[in-house]
Amino acid sequence: MTLAIHDWSQLGEAARAALLERPAPAAGAALAAEVEAIIAQVRAGGDPALRELTRRLDGVELASATVAAEEFAAAEAALAPAAHAAIERAIGNVRRFHEAQQSAPLEVETSPGVRCARLVRPIEAVGLYVPAGSAPLPSAAIMLAVPAALAGCPTRVLCTPPRRDGRADPAVLVAARRCGVERVYKVGGAQAIAALAYGTATIPKVDKIFGPGNAWVTAAKLRVAADPAGAALDLPAGPSEVLVIADGSARAEFVAADLLAQAEHDPAAQVILVTTSAALAKATVAELERQQPRLTRRAITARALAASRAIVVADLATAFAVSNRYAPEHLILEIDAPRDWLGEVRAAGSVFLGHWSPETIGDYCSGTNHVLPTYGYARAYSGLALADFQRRITVQELTPAGLRDLGPVAVTLAGLEGLDAHAAAVQVRLAALAAPEAA
Amino acid sequence: MTLAIHDWSQLGEAARAALLERPAPAAGAALAAEVEAIIAQVRAGGDPALRELTRRLDGVELASATVAAEEFAAAEAALAPAAHAAIERAIGNVRRFHEAQQSAPLEVETSPGVRCARLVRPIEAVGLYVPAGSAPLPSAAIMLAVPAALAGCPTRVLCTPPRRDGRADPAVLVAARRCGVERVYKVGGAQAIAALAYGTATIPKVDKIFGPGNAWVTAAKLRVAADPAGAALDLPAGPSEVLVIADGSARAEFVAADLLAQAEHDPAAQVILVTTSAALAKATVAELERQQPRLTRRAITARALAASRAIVVADLATAFAVSNRYAPEHLILEIDAPRDWLGEVRAAGSVFLGHWSPETIGDYCSGTNHVLPTYGYARAYSGLALADFQRRITVQELTPAGLRDLGPVAVTLAGLEGLDAHAAAVQVRLAALAAPEAA
Repeated sequence: MTLAIHDWSQLGEAARAALLERPAPAAGAALAAEVEAIIAQVRAGGDPALRELTRRLDGVELASATVAAEEFAAAEAALAPAAHAAIERAIGNVRRFHEAQQSAPLEVETSPGVRCARLVRPIEAVGLYVPAGSAPLPSAAIMLAVPAALAGCPTRVLCTPPRRDGRADPAVLVAARRCGVERVYKVGGAQAIAALAYGTATIPKVDKIFGPGNAWVTAAKLRVAADPAGAALDLPAGPSEVLVIADGSARAEFVAADLLAQAEHDPAAQVILVTTSAALAKATVAELERQQPRLTRRAITARALAASRAIVVADLATAFAVSNRYAPEHLILEIDAPRDWLGEVRAAGSVFLGHWSPETIGDYCSGTNHVLPTYGYARAYSGLALADFQRRITVQELTPAGLRDLGPVAVTLAGLEGLDAHAAAVQVRLAALAAPEAA
Repeated sequence: MTLAIHDWSQLGEAARAALLERPAPAAGAALAAEVEAIIAQVRAGGDPALRELTRRLDGVELASATVAAEEFAAAEAALAPAAHAAIERAIGNVRRFHEAQQSAPLEVETSPGVRCARLVRPIEAVGLYVPAGSAPLPSAAIMLAVPAALAGCPTRVLCTPPRRDGRADPAVLVAARRCGVERVYKVGGAQAIAALAYGTATIPKVDKIFGPGNAWVTAAKLRVAADPAGAALDLPAGPSEVLVIADGSARAEFVAADLLAQAEHDPAAQVILVTTSAALAKATVAELERQQPRLTRRAITARALAASRAIVVADLATAFAVSNRYAPEHLILEIDAPRDWLGEVRAAGSVFLGHWSPETIGDYCSGTNHVLPTYGYARAYSGLALADFQRRITVQELTPAGLRDLGPVAVTLAGLEGLDAHAAAVQVRLAALAAPEAA
């Protein structure tokens, strides 16, 4: 059995809630203590501690974690021309979509003589983490490095775990370099996050750390983000998810393939089909059983699908209500006229419209960012964007006339708050303006 | 002695670093445990637990935490016409600056037949926390409620601690209601954060919590944000800060008043003057001594100023380098032609230009948001903006031709990552398109 089918209209509120529940987060006290110890070791021991942790945790002895010119060159040579071309096209699309996110200059005269503006500045130093656990992820390098370059972050550093042979994944290296990241270090896990957050002699300290990772990486990112001397993080992370809304127009073959693509990420990956067609639900189950045995990662997909569910609903309005309640990372609309329904999407990371927009395309090369809010975080968070690599600084300038006009308002409000030094900073200037030798 | 004067050029690197250091965060293990217990009590006990905590921690017995129509009406009547008018003007300016932050629709054809877009959605439920510890802060209500209303967040809830008489501060109530917040609850501290994050019978659960607060509030916000079932937070918070850059054109009287306005917030408030003029530094010390005794909160300002410092630098370029290294929440440029130097500002929360733009104006009514990154967080975070009340959802749609063109790129990249189910989700569609009966 791959996909349990439920009839939404037959379920009570408790059963509905249970159906949309996510698994409890994996991180426990033991993992937290381990991560804490790794961070402490890296802060105290620097590069030698990193070397020791890489030996112990990755089983690799590295003379240097730094990827040298020779290794970059070997990676370029190792990749087939089609791979180079695919990386290039993905970068181009991701660049075009993120370039369009540049914010226009903002300057407003809020009152006569009171000008407010907003400056945009790149974050000075960013750390990009590219995992390579069950699969190396050159696509993650693209999703992180392209907006970092567009934002103009002066220091861009990438960490990725070494393979057993002591090398980094060549596709990750090619993608990183093609996105303008020249500083790549072969360090993974919590130790990489610690090195980026606090710096070592080799690895520069960064202000913010981006990228997906396993439970250790996630726990370490949360830990260093809670320390003002550490580094901010991009997004809280959980297992990857897809919710497919399908009507009678959907093809079971496509729906099943999309569910399997999600399921192969992780045994904890969440896979949900919401459909108005009981026939489609059944056909999808049959397709899953047909397609799954061909997959390399079928042991993973089988475990993920065991926890998956198909929900049959009365109409599309209900389907969207279910989806909004779940707030999926990825939402695929395998329905006719999906644009007509876009207004109903209240919470999701990224949406895929129609029968010809598989989620795979968003993972790699449509142009949208694939770092997205999981685990219901889409209720409060957005996927990665250019703005996450920037800061916005507000600015205000008052003319003497502007202060004469607006100053008394501030004095009154300061009075309501009992803050007379706040009032005095305005009054001392109003007095100077009232004096004959005023500016 | 109110302000120690240091000559930057005479200091070694260690002394410079020490001079720009912030006090260690107050939050300790004892406070964390207390906050944890309060959160657990509210989750388990709901409204009765809140009532009990309000009795114990605020010393007030409240029949209901809900601010009723009668209390709103009494607040309206209690405020002087000038106070109403000032609140109105502040709201107007804040609204104008945040309205200008509405993002334009974003839609890009990244490749032929591949359209990517971005939707903007309000966060469904937001919690606004308005402290009333050493001072009630109607200005905070404005800074939180105006962007929440502009974003269109459907559920907007405000919590603020009750006064000893069981009422909420009338100015906070008037400001809240004028910004379109009708649901106000008299609950403060960690218990308010717990109620907002998890909900009670009376207080709705929210997706994200905004607003400043003391160490308990901050610890509680961090705690519930780390729980996927809790609520996200706006910004990590630390003591408020100002850094003034002043040259020979500055008036010591203004500079001193600005430093005192910052110092009155909190004994831990950070106050730094960086100036090219040793004479101005001395004159500012004299002014501080002259102005401080007049202030109501002089006990607080004296403690804050005891930890403050004036740094004399050789030139303005050095002054900006010092400021960027510190990354202040508020940066006041009391120099001639401050706009010429704006390009040098790399890290700050909000900048005040010239001699007629006191920070007080930004706290209340210039239009910029006064919820800003403190404690060096300006290196990675930005002040509160309209976008913080919204989520951005990406969308992609491929035509059959678009998939035919871009699909093979995704297949190649999936191959590099060893994810064949990802590839299959594209291939199954490419095969359908190649078949004669293709869509």
